[in-house]
Amino acid sequence: MTFAQFGREHIPAIDGFISDYFTGKMASAEHRFMADFYGDILEYLNRDGKRIRPLVLMASYLGYRRRFRKTGEAVKAASVLEIMHAMLLIQDDLIDRATLRRGGPAFHLLMRDKYSSYTLNGGIGNDIAIILADIIFADSLEIISGIAAPRAVKDRFLQVFSRTYQVTAWGQLLDSLYSLSTRIAEAGDVPMLISTMKTSHYTIFYPLLMGYVLSGKNDRQEISRIREFSIPLGIAFQLRDDIQGVFASGDEIGKSADSDIREGKLTLLVQYALEALGGGERDRFMELFLREEKSDGDVGEIRGMIDASGARGRAGETHRALVGEALRKLRRLSVPPETAGVLGGLVDLIAAV
Amino acid sequence: MTFAQFGREHIPAIDGFISDYFTGKMASAEHRFMADFYGDILEYLNRDGKRIRPLVLMASYLGYRRRFRKTGEAVKAASVLEIMHAMLLIQDDLIDRATLRRGGPAFHLLMRDKYSSYTLNGGIGNDIAIILADIIFADSLEIISGIAAPRAVKDRFLQVFSRTYQVTAWGQLLDSLYSLSTRIAEAGDVPMLISTMKTSHYTIFYPLLMGYVLSGKNDRQEISRIREFSIPLGIAFQLRDDIQGVFASGDEIGKSADSDIREGKLTLLVQYALEALGGGERDRFMELFLREEKSDGDVGEIRGMIDASGARGRAGETHRALVGEALRKLRRLSVPPETAGVLGGLVDLIAAV
Repeated sequence: MTFAQFGREHIPAIDGFISDYFTGKMASAEHRFMADFYGDILEYLNRDGKRIRPLVLMASYLGYRRRFRKTGEAVKAASVLEIMHAMLLIQDDLIDRATLRRGGPAFHLLMRDKYSSYTLNGGIGNDIAIILADIIFADSLEIISGIAAPRAVKDRFLQVFSRTYQVTAWGQLLDSLYSLSTRIAEAGDVPMLISTMKTSHYTIFYPLLMGYVLSGKNDRQEISRIREFSIPLGIAFQLRDDIQGVFASGDEIGKSADSDIREGKLTLLVQYALEALGGGERDRFMELFLREEKSDGDVGEIRGMIDASGARGRAGETHRALVGEALRKLRRLSVPPETAGVLGGLVDLIAAV
Repeated sequence: MTFAQFGREHIPAIDGFISDYFTGKMASAEHRFMADFYGDILEYLNRDGKRIRPLVLMASYLGYRRRFRKTGEAVKAASVLEIMHAMLLIQDDLIDRATLRRGGPAFHLLMRDKYSSYTLNGGIGNDIAIILADIIFADSLEIISGIAAPRAVKDRFLQVFSRTYQVTAWGQLLDSLYSLSTRIAEAGDVPMLISTMKTSHYTIFYPLLMGYVLSGKNDRQEISRIREFSIPLGIAFQLRDDIQGVFASGDEIGKSADSDIREGKLTLLVQYALEALGGGERDRFMELFLREEKSDGDVGEIRGMIDASGARGRAGETHRALVGEALRKLRRLSVPPETAGVLGGLVDLIAAV
């Protein structure tokens, strides 16, 4: 089964749960303004997205659970991952001053346009985004409190859930510290750490682990095997994103094209370029890359240097090697062939650049 | 027992738990930068604070529990309230562009000063504050996952915990929409709603309810009585804060003096002034109050108008009436005399302007 087929089978239940939850929130809101904001959140969540994290959780849960268990509780957990993802996207766009997301305006800009008539505070859109992120986080806990599972399973789930957003935030913190950073040339393992935390753990390992924990299992060795599969796959995923973030058009990726370059993000791709460029070229690259406002010409020149340095090629090769490693580790997981097929489908998706 | 005496008895366990938790996080951090940030968080939490919310939870738990239960699990929950409070203070100061908190620099300014050498991004302090707030939220869940309680109690606790930060955030959202707002003259029940959500629920009702739930009890009528005690007491608390925010000196309240006026906050006190001022005076008040940058002269004139309008007097009278109502409702709670004494001590604290 391809990952897309698995998605067509399970996304309706996830999207249905999310829609029911927020529609319920709108209906039961004690005050009109709350219902309005919940409407905005639901609209944002309804934008096109790949639902990768909830699907990874579902695949894991279905692969590891004993037979005949109901899947409804896993759907709740999967939906929470998508809801929390929306929260992180809202914060990311705020931090990156991004303007577009999933084919629409970034959430803080939507809020600014909708509510700027209330106040002379020009930062109102940002302020609302910060506050609604808390509400979304708290809503997620409400959903978790309603998941029916034995106490030990529930406590373990909450622990993994907590770890997920700790590790992701640490990755985001490094990402912010090393954006437009004069320290990128001596950043060492920072871009690898960012990829491991923000993608391997956030998108692959923890969703798999949450599905595993919800299935009621708790074997250290299997958890290690899940991690060994997740790390290379996540880095490969991030490398693919890095390459697309520099060389793809905005239509393909649904957010601002060139945003990685414009924001001066220290990706693995950029680190490869820095390692490959000679003294003078490297100075020129740094000078351009650290410009807070970059012209189209600047962006084009940076893109050209990344390509000519061989970094694009190296990123592609590393990506292929990591995909191969993930496929080897996938075979070691104690999951039925059907689940191995779905996860193989995910690897295929990440393999396609 | 006064509330201060109750505090001296229970704060050491709460502060000890918080200190142990974050010291443990620092010791077990996989990367140096994490340990550094945890150090900053602990330092922030160690600043002088009244620990009102954790103490209210403890008083409730001790009053409602059956005899001879261990209090260690309640201490964990109480500590979480203080940790989450730090998170909200960080966000509040970011949103309000505040500079001082608990006698030190606001957290985002601390971060800006410490980490601005990393990046040309002038907003790095704000970005770090947004991200660390998520980490603190996630840490709180980790602590909750470790609270030993029957499943039903744990689920109810998580539900109340979730409601707490939903309602508080809704209050904060209204607060932001109506700061420097051209709509303050026709805001209706908004300042009352803000007080009810941000103070009655956040500081009194939910901490009491969390202690109640942790005690294993779940009686609808008693929950109603807890709410009836909490609402007037919280509004009284907010009125006291409103009055101090305009008329007290900065040293007394540990944050910037005049900040409510400078930020153009729609408090009940300001609403009383708007209701009392005649046409011309009111226009002048609005004109001054909506200035984004206020001179010391502006602030003094606003303060004088609030006083002369009779709003200060009305706020004081309302405050006294609400304190009286809270004392009457306190007698209806099914708690032993000792707990009634502690909560009476809290009322005394709030009664003193």
